[in-house]
Amino acid sequence: MAVDPSAPHVDLRPIGVFDSGVGGLTVVRALRRVLPAESVIYLGDTARVPYGTKSPRTVERYSLACQRFLLDRDVKLVMVACNTASANALSALASASDVPVIGAVRPGAQASVEDSSSQRIGVIGTLATIASRAYERAIAELDASAHVSSLACPLLVPLAEEGWTDGPIATAIVERYRRQLCALDSDIDTLVLGCTHYPLLKGEIERLANAITSREIRVVDSASAMAGAASALLGDRANRADSVGALNIFVTDATRMQELSTRFLGERASGFELVDL
Amino acid sequence: MAVDPSAPHVDLRPIGVFDSGVGGLTVVRALRRVLPAESVIYLGDTARVPYGTKSPRTVERYSLACQRFLLDRDVKLVMVACNTASANALSALASASDVPVIGAVRPGAQASVEDSSSQRIGVIGTLATIASRAYERAIAELDASAHVSSLACPLLVPLAEEGWTDGPIATAIVERYRRQLCALDSDIDTLVLGCTHYPLLKGEIERLANAITSREIRVVDSASAMAGAASALLGDRANRADSVGALNIFVTDATRMQELSTRFLGERASGFELVDL
Repeated sequence: MAVDPSAPHVDLRPIGVFDSGVGGLTVVRALRRVLPAESVIYLGDTARVPYGTKSPRTVERYSLACQRFLLDRDVKLVMVACNTASANALSALASASDVPVIGAVRPGAQASVEDSSSQRIGVIGTLATIASRAYERAIAELDASAHVSSLACPLLVPLAEEGWTDGPIATAIVERYRRQLCALDSDIDTLVLGCTHYPLLKGEIERLANAITSREIRVVDSASAMAGAASALLGDRANRADSVGALNIFVTDATRMQELSTRFLGERASGFELVDL
Repeated sequence: MAVDPSAPHVDLRPIGVFDSGVGGLTVVRALRRVLPAESVIYLGDTARVPYGTKSPRTVERYSLACQRFLLDRDVKLVMVACNTASANALSALASASDVPVIGAVRPGAQASVEDSSSQRIGVIGTLATIASRAYERAIAELDASAHVSSLACPLLVPLAEEGWTDGPIATAIVERYRRQLCALDSDIDTLVLGCTHYPLLKGEIERLANAITSREIRVVDSASAMAGAASALLGDRANRADSVGALNIFVTDATRMQELSTRFLGERASGFELVDL
């Protein structure tokens, strides 16, 4: 790997990313756009997905095991792509790690507060994420005056996993959820995609959001926000060489991985290794 | 409760039904159509739904706990509305029960073999049910010459749970899956709805199945098939009085229950009790 000799602080260790499933590969995709030279180790706990239906204690235990796997591979940064793990286990993860830990909720919340001029913010996510109120809490911590409207959109995950991300079905479903969200607050100017699956639908969501309203609605995807947070946190320790870093994908169950990994990663994964946590 | 005195064999104990979630309420709905006088106890293990992503050993453990709960309430019959539990735990459940146990897979498989004249049968279900090949095995046991084509339809469960069971979105999604199934075998004459959520979409599925093909496609829903199997098994021990039996619903987590129970049951539940297994 070509390293700029004028950048003595560069830390060549990989970045670790984990998620309960494959959705977190959209975070890897965003990372490879922002920091292409970084090596990345991804762990998807696909045998135990979803975390959203499990007890907070179980989520913490599984999340700590995922993080341990990454720390054992000498990562310089842990990124928790799973919203449920971020909402329930982030402080336990940070306590158990000697490298920085970036969660899924805070970067998206931060970007929405920065992007919104009216502080009327919409959040969409899975049933579990919306029920956890994690985004509402994170946004309130950043700006107590912000008005947050949240909507669970349970059809969007299977829609993304099926790869039906454009065309009439995606349009009709996104449009129906858009109307439900507008019924909660027709004045939102910023919409947070609070699920790692949703960046695959970002085009459709942006198109519909802006086709209807007279003013622009900014769409914040938490995957891109996390990649931005990683870049900011690493600063001059980030590998910004003109090369493409290695990507190693580990999963706890390989079912549908070939199909799904390509869809979420946006590039063909060279392979993935099956591990038992 | 009015009991026909000329039916001395009638067993007035309730029928027990359990499922990992709310979907099994479609089995209760079918039961109440076929055997309205029967009292029913339903247990939805909604805190641990879905079972489809858990290990066979865990599924067996959870299923035994669900059955224990029903047996402790003196049921005369246990109905396992969960496809995953039926595929992984049925023999363990039958061994642990002193009353008959009816699973979700066999009745639907049986009905499809009886209904099909060409023995070209389609099966749709969740990713977990289709991956388990439970219907294929059950149909092969009944008729080794049957040709089974299976398709996972992951959008249908959230579609049913959202209550979007008719209208353009349901039509477009069902039509897309229909085309995928026809690509596997354009000659199927019978389609098994291998998921307890799907009876809510039966109208849409039947309409589309028959609009396209020149001959009729019979749609077998496993909920109705299970209710028929219960009626046949109970015979003259069934309560066939001219009255409406009691229905008691127990769940391990009450989130969304009010909304979902009405949708799946087709009547307003008088309430549900939260239990810890």
